Amino acid sequence: MAKVSNKYLEVDPYLIIEKGFHQDRHQVSESIFSLSNEYVGVRGFFEEDISLPHLIGTYFNGVIEVGTDLGAPHYKGVVNKTHFTLNSVNFLKCHIDALGETLDLCKVSFDNYLETLDMRSGLLKREFVWNVKDIHIYVSFERLLDMERCKHAYQRITFRSDKDVELTLSMSLDFGIVHWGKTCYWNDISVIEKDDIHGVSSKTITTNQEIISLQRITPRLNNVKTSNKELDEYGTLKLTANKDMVISKHIFNHVVDGDYNIKEFVKELKDDDTIDQAILRNKEYFRKVYERSDIIIEGSDLDQQGIRYCIFQLEQTYHGYSKNNNIGAKGLTGEAYSGHAFWDSETYCLPYYLFSNQASAKNLLMFRYETLGFAKERAKDLDCEGACYPIATRNGEEACTLWQHASCQIQPTTAVGYAIFHYMNIYHDDEFMKKYGLEMILEICKFLLTRGQYNMDNTYFGYYGVMGPDEFQLMVNHNTYTNYMGKKMFEYLFTLLDNPKYHNPELLKKCGYTDELLKRMRDASDKMLILYDDKTKLFEQHDGYYKLPHIDIHSIPVTDFPLYSHWSYDRIYRNDIIKQPDVLMFMFLYPSDFTYEQKKANYEYYEPRCIHESSLSPSIHSIFASELGKEDEALNFFNFATRLDLDDYNRNTCEGLHMTSIAAAWMNIVYGFLGLRSDKEQIELNPTLPKRWNKYRVNLYYQNRIIKSEVNKDYLNIDVIGESITLKIYGKDVRIDKNLRIKRS
Amino acid sequence: MAKVSNKYLEVDPYLIIEKGFHQDRHQVSESIFSLSNEYVGVRGFFEEDISLPHLIGTYFNGVIEVGTDLGAPHYKGVVNKTHFTLNSVNFLKCHIDALGETLDLCKVSFDNYLETLDMRSGLLKREFVWNVKDIHIYVSFERLLDMERCKHAYQRITFRSDKDVELTLSMSLDFGIVHWGKTCYWNDISVIEKDDIHGVSSKTITTNQEIISLQRITPRLNNVKTSNKELDEYGTLKLTANKDMVISKHIFNHVVDGDYNIKEFVKELKDDDTIDQAILRNKEYFRKVYERSDIIIEGSDLDQQGIRYCIFQLEQTYHGYSKNNNIGAKGLTGEAYSGHAFWDSETYCLPYYLFSNQASAKNLLMFRYETLGFAKERAKDLDCEGACYPIATRNGEEACTLWQHASCQIQPTTAVGYAIFHYMNIYHDDEFMKKYGLEMILEICKFLLTRGQYNMDNTYFGYYGVMGPDEFQLMVNHNTYTNYMGKKMFEYLFTLLDNPKYHNPELLKKCGYTDELLKRMRDASDKMLILYDDKTKLFEQHDGYYKLPHIDIHSIPVTDFPLYSHWSYDRIYRNDIIKQPDVLMFMFLYPSDFTYEQKKANYEYYEPRCIHESSLSPSIHSIFASELGKEDEALNFFNFATRLDLDDYNRNTCEGLHMTSIAAAWMNIVYGFLGLRSDKEQIELNPTLPKRWNKYRVNLYYQNRIIKSEVNKDYLNIDVIGESITLKIYGKDVRIDKNLRIKRS
Repeated sequence: MAKVSNKYLEVDPYLIIEKGFHQDRHQVSESIFSLSNEYVGVRGFFEEDISLPHLIGTYFNGVIEVGTDLGAPHYKGVVNKTHFTLNSVNFLKCHIDALGETLDLCKVSFDNYLETLDMRSGLLKREFVWNVKDIHIYVSFERLLDMERCKHAYQRITFRSDKDVELTLSMSLDFGIVHWGKTCYWNDISVIEKDDIHGVSSKTITTNQEIISLQRITPRLNNVKTSNKELDEYGTLKLTANKDMVISKHIFNHVVDGDYNIKEFVKELKDDDTIDQAILRNKEYFRKVYERSDIIIEGSDLDQQGIRYCIFQLEQTYHGYSKNNNIGAKGLTGEAYSGHAFWDSETYCLPYYLFSNQASAKNLLMFRYETLGFAKERAKDLDCEGACYPIATRNGEEACTLWQHASCQIQPTTAVGYAIFHYMNIYHDDEFMKKYGLEMILEICKFLLTRGQYNMDNTYFGYYGVMGPDEFQLMVNHNTYTNYMGKKMFEYLFTLLDNPKYHNPELLKKCGYTDELLKRMRDASDKMLILYDDKTKLFEQHDGYYKLPHIDIHSIPVTDFPLYSHWSYDRIYRNDIIKQPDVLMFMFLYPSDFTYEQKKANYEYYEPRCIHESSLSPSIHSIFASELGKEDEALNFFNFATRLDLDDYNRNTCEGLHMTSIAAAWMNIVYGFLGLRSDKEQIELNPTLPKRWNKYRVNLYYQNRIIKSEVNKDYLNIDVIGESITLKIYGKDVRIDKNLRIKRS
Repeated sequence: MAKVSNKYLEVDPYLIIEKGFHQDRHQVSESIFSLSNEYVGVRGFFEEDISLPHLIGTYFNGVIEVGTDLGAPHYKGVVNKTHFTLNSVNFLKCHIDALGETLDLCKVSFDNYLETLDMRSGLLKREFVWNVKDIHIYVSFERLLDMERCKHAYQRITFRSDKDVELTLSMSLDFGIVHWGKTCYWNDISVIEKDDIHGVSSKTITTNQEIISLQRITPRLNNVKTSNKELDEYGTLKLTANKDMVISKHIFNHVVDGDYNIKEFVKELKDDDTIDQAILRNKEYFRKVYERSDIIIEGSDLDQQGIRYCIFQLEQTYHGYSKNNNIGAKGLTGEAYSGHAFWDSETYCLPYYLFSNQASAKNLLMFRYETLGFAKERAKDLDCEGACYPIATRNGEEACTLWQHASCQIQPTTAVGYAIFHYMNIYHDDEFMKKYGLEMILEICKFLLTRGQYNMDNTYFGYYGVMGPDEFQLMVNHNTYTNYMGKKMFEYLFTLLDNPKYHNPELLKKCGYTDELLKRMRDASDKMLILYDDKTKLFEQHDGYYKLPHIDIHSIPVTDFPLYSHWSYDRIYRNDIIKQPDVLMFMFLYPSDFTYEQKKANYEYYEPRCIHESSLSPSIHSIFASELGKEDEALNFFNFATRLDLDDYNRNTCEGLHMTSIAAAWMNIVYGFLGLRSDKEQIELNPTLPKRWNKYRVNLYYQNRIIKSEVNKDYLNIDVIGESITLKIYGKDVRIDKNLRIKRS
């Protein structure tokens, strides 16, 4: 099942370049050239007309619509309404005519097409020469979202022709956007006009959320027209031969979240701020990002570009601007997965933020605190107590209408608990724990207690009717991942409760904790069934897994993949194929709990049964292979991790970027090759060097300092910016001050 | 969880009587007073206006509409469109005014309300005295569906007042019928007019099926008006004091199934046929039914009325008029269950027809032959071969959109195989087997082979990811019912193939049978895993059932029932509660395969775990209790079986009659108290007498003769109309000629 790249972009360490227009990849490019500043994301759709299938996508974080009743049966606990991040106003829309021709790259003659995304600034530029009759007009479109002044966006169009020529240009704010190619969820616009500033506002049909979008165009276009959903400013441009004509547009977007004064917004556009200033600001922003978090690879330009793209897109998608935001599986780059966040946020994405920016990491946890109310409601819907976190959500409510996932997968809840544990390991943030963390852990453990059951004669405890992380084993009992994580959560809570720092009887009372409840919890934890055989060192994935029909995954025809699309739904679940790591997953989360032999045995047993139908799967395998000294396998699983989207390995990048896989690629390098372990108070490094690299450097932000590691064939060179620190390196405590050279073992 | 009756009807052996109008039971009465002749069913809705919630339901067998896309995910094998039996033209509608009052029993003054359904004729009559000002008008409505001339229906309204008075009456044909209280699926009508006959026709919106409905009213009403969906004939009636005024309406309905000539239909209404003649015809029809199939109970008038109602409704719903018909879970009496037939038809209903009318029984099987094409398609959808019969269908296509049922329940398929085996036991119908039966068995077995799997080391075979008859254990492996039935199907096929009578290499070839396939099938059959422990004599319901969390069903609060409505969906499946017999079910189907000790052990193990959330459950338990000599339990489970609907035990008779439970009630008496066994070529009887009865008589039609059994305290008196026959009675072969008296053992 080797996946094959579909490469068409140029290779460069800081740029993503499309040379020549690849019509057949248009929607892939739209995804890849997506910009976001967490407040809003825009796909790399064309400003001007284009007669190709496209997805004009603009997604404001938190602006959602709700799905209608899906006709699903109304069983208790089965979700039958859903919500999704809504495609919103296109504030970059243009229309350009010259000499009776409309600019549409499918219909006109053009040369020298070049699109460039600069990962040092987040500037997207697209340029070409439009041949109209005997005239050649150079056209460039630039756009930028301000990373910090995140309601500001900039657009610049430059024309230069070799003869005098007249153009007409319109620049629009368009709410006539359909979602899922079907429905416009926006009411008719209201028009705003103040001097040279024009704008529109509209509300969503059901959720009644409002967006205001204002534009100032320089120089002014002379005419304005409006329709039910759209405002256009338009006018004639007279180009003089060989002279640049530059049209700039400064946009201010506001998602209404309370009272506002439109005059304040108008002021924001009057401060003579330009795109060039915004570029400088963004450059400074990304300079700091790379200072803390860059990875530099020598020996593979592909990997270099790939991993930088990962870091760039992670930062764009989420950097903790708001505790009401989270990381959608597709970021803000498409409509697939409805903008929902999954347990990926805590399990795959959080580590990046933990080692780049404490505030971001904390806000990712705060999202779960802010939505604790929904999680408690959800637990009740499931006849349980405490808090059950959703498998898929944007606003905190469970949005997954498939009961087999929403009611049977417990890992979103344990992932939140794990994330708190993980964050505390790194930051020892007692204030956080006291104010937010402990309450979440208490509610999580209450859910875990009430969702679990004892077996027939009460000799052991565990989870019945669950699906673990591996979504190919449905409705199983004693999934070891789930039981293990449940036990770890209970134990973590007991540790916290034993710690005088967190003594808080009031909170315990508020959460309904009594001595009796704690006694029950201790008993459940003690009797938690962990299916482990010390002789083989194997954990059984769930009770009965070993007895399942065996399928040699290499016997499955390539054309059967992905199985979800080609196999009868029930058939997927009736054998020992696994979709993604399950036993290996809890061993990954708690690497210090297991011996080398245990890791080896379980890796060697489960790896041949895994088809990696989740894009999150290979990286975890690569990390294990690294630790187990299986260098080729480690590289093999890493293979295209950083370039999943750039080279469209899954052939669905057109739908949006695999944002959480991007995070997994980062983990693959940092936890895999660099051998980071962060499940204890002291972090560890065990660096290896992948064969295809000469050396690599990794910057990790860690407790107010930056740790810079450089790994080459012989040495680990490690440096610290900030106070010295003791790390475990290759199993030994090492005090790191400045420029330490350690022989690789 | 004792269920409580909600009795409001009078008790009578041949009549169902509602004395006084029970407003609060209006929809229950609508269901109970339903008429049907298999071609069409009408609920007992009021002809005239009534300001109460009601369900005006008229259902023509085979007239369906299709549901729109349900938004379900498009996984392979998961059904995302459905179909349902459509509520159709109301051909009994009336509107009556007198002295400015509209007849509406919620709004007028009335006395002496009486509604009577005569189970000897199928005549439904409703009468009362309407007090308008100082005038008393006796009104009666009669309706009848002709059981044999099944397109004919009759309505008669009689008025008699104590003073001269003028009425206006309209009698209508109304296609303005909404289904599920929401949508009218009928296009605008076409109007038909020939002399004194008026009619309408309309087509369904999506499926384009057409119904023609004609009426002749005697004496004529003078005026006609039509709207988009309705035709009304109306006029003024001048009542003379104390003189009957009788208005008769003769209706002819036709579901278009090819070319037709409207003149022929008009002729049908011109033959001077009257309701009185139709009553005589129906009386003769039901006389024959009771001659072959009656049950007479002395000692419990409730049971007597109950069981006769069961027989009457079974006959009404289905008597094999067409091989394209089947038995909906609600018959033709409501919209719940969408008119779908389930495995109930073969498993619970077929026995009644086997012992009353060979042609009916055969046509019930022929439905599955006629829809074999759909079953083969369905098997393909599930990545299998052969034929997979639907869990719910009206037209043969799978209509169940819940994959956990439609993809995981195999018992509809084995039920068809079992039905063929059962029918053959009774009728030795070699022609049927050669032409239809063998092909079905071949396709069924092919499905069973390809749906099954070997365990990891190929030491045993069975079914993974299934739900057995017990719908509270979802996605289990080696459900013993499924494995056992699979093995029995294979073995039955091998027996047939060994029989020179059925030698048919062409058919084998057509069905893709090769020696290799048969070898695989024999191996699968040999290695079929049957979870049985000879020490305890227990069959484990599925692999792992014994380890499930135990819930004492008596500890569940009464308010939690039904669990489907009060428990979180996933919670239902995470314990050892069973909804209905599963192990006991295959022991019921093949009683001769098991010893008394085995039956006793399994009954005593599983009965305390069963909450009977299926109305089909108690009867099976009663049958076992009878055999095991647990007389009180047998009676306890039988308790309300015959009166489930008459006394509205489940509080949902308003939605329609529990048609297949009605069949189970018949089985309860015949297989339970009378001790019939029919899983071998020779039938057996082991009669017992329930305590609350003095005696009972059962007529069974069997191989061209009628066997009449009378069971009293001491004796079984048995008589045969037709040729003498040898039956096994109390374990001994007994030759029965005339009036044999056998001491009960």
